[in-house]
Amino acid sequence: MPTDLRLDHVAIAVEDLEAAVSVYSELLDAEAAGRETVESEGVDVAFFDLGETRIELMEPRGPDTPVGRFLERRGPGLHHVALGVPDIESALERCRAAGLEPAGDAPRPGSGGGRVAFLHPRGTSGVLIELSERPG
Amino acid sequence: MPTDLRLDHVAIAVEDLEAAVSVYSELLDAEAAGRETVESEGVDVAFFDLGETRIELMEPRGPDTPVGRFLERRGPGLHHVALGVPDIESALERCRAAGLEPAGDAPRPGSGGGRVAFLHPRGTSGVLIELSERPG
Repeated sequence: MPTDLRLDHVAIAVEDLEAAVSVYSELLDAEAAGRETVESEGVDVAFFDLGETRIELMEPRGPDTPVGRFLERRGPGLHHVALGVPDIESALERCRAAGLEPAGDAPRPGSGGGRVAFLHPRGTSGVLIELSERPG
Repeated sequence: MPTDLRLDHVAIAVEDLEAAVSVYSELLDAEAAGRETVESEGVDVAFFDLGETRIELMEPRGPDTPVGRFLERRGPGLHHVALGVPDIESALERCRAAGLEPAGDAPRPGSGGGRVAFLHPRGTSGVLIELSERPG
C-alpha cells in the first residue's frame, strides 16, 4: 500500500547561511525560493524547492538554541527530515503505538500556521523526524 | 528559475536493517517498496517510496565498509542525500566550477545501470551529496 505521507523537507544545520546559500545555489542550479525566521526554533532559514519537496538550510540565531547546540556538538550537516502528514494526531497515535516517543510538546505550532511534532531520534535509527501538518 | 534536479533519495545508516524496516514501516505507514544489495558500496538496502522521492535504510555488510566506518564513528543516522540529475557530467562540471570536489571516482557505475558521483562534505556544510543519473 503506498503511503499518503510526503517528504516535506530535509533540513541542514549550517554555520553561515549566506555562504551555504551560495554553495547550494550552484549545487542545485537554482536560486533560494524563500527565506524565513522561525523565532520559536531560533533559526534563520533559506529553502530550495526540489519538485514536491525542499531542502532547508538553517543557521541558528545563537549558541543557546537547539540548532546552536547541534552545531557545537556535531558540526554542520544533516539535521532532520520532515514528513508531511494529513492528520498529525493520527500520525502521532500511530507512532506512539509503535513505541516512538515525541520530543517536547507534540503537536505544537509550526511555521505558516501548521502544526509540527518531533520524534526522539533514539527510536528512529538516530534520525530526528519532524511530523508536519500544513494548514487547510 | 526552478531547478531540473530531483531529490532522488535520503539515505539512513542503520545497525539492524530488519529492526529499522519494522520501525519505518510504522512511521511511514507503508511497506518497504524494495530491497537491494549494493555490492560496490557494501550495503544491504531497503527503500520506501514517498511520492517522487524515497527513503533508503542501509545496513553495512561489514565494519570495513564506508557505511560500517560511518556507524563506528558517528552511530546510526542520516548518511547522505542523493540528487537526481539529468546529465551527470554537466552537473559535475558545474560543481567543480563552484569549488565542490568529488570524493572518489566520479562518475562511477551506480545501482540499476545508472551513474553516480559523491561530493566531499567539506564543501557542502558537512552533507555527503550523491549525484545520480538514472539510465535512459
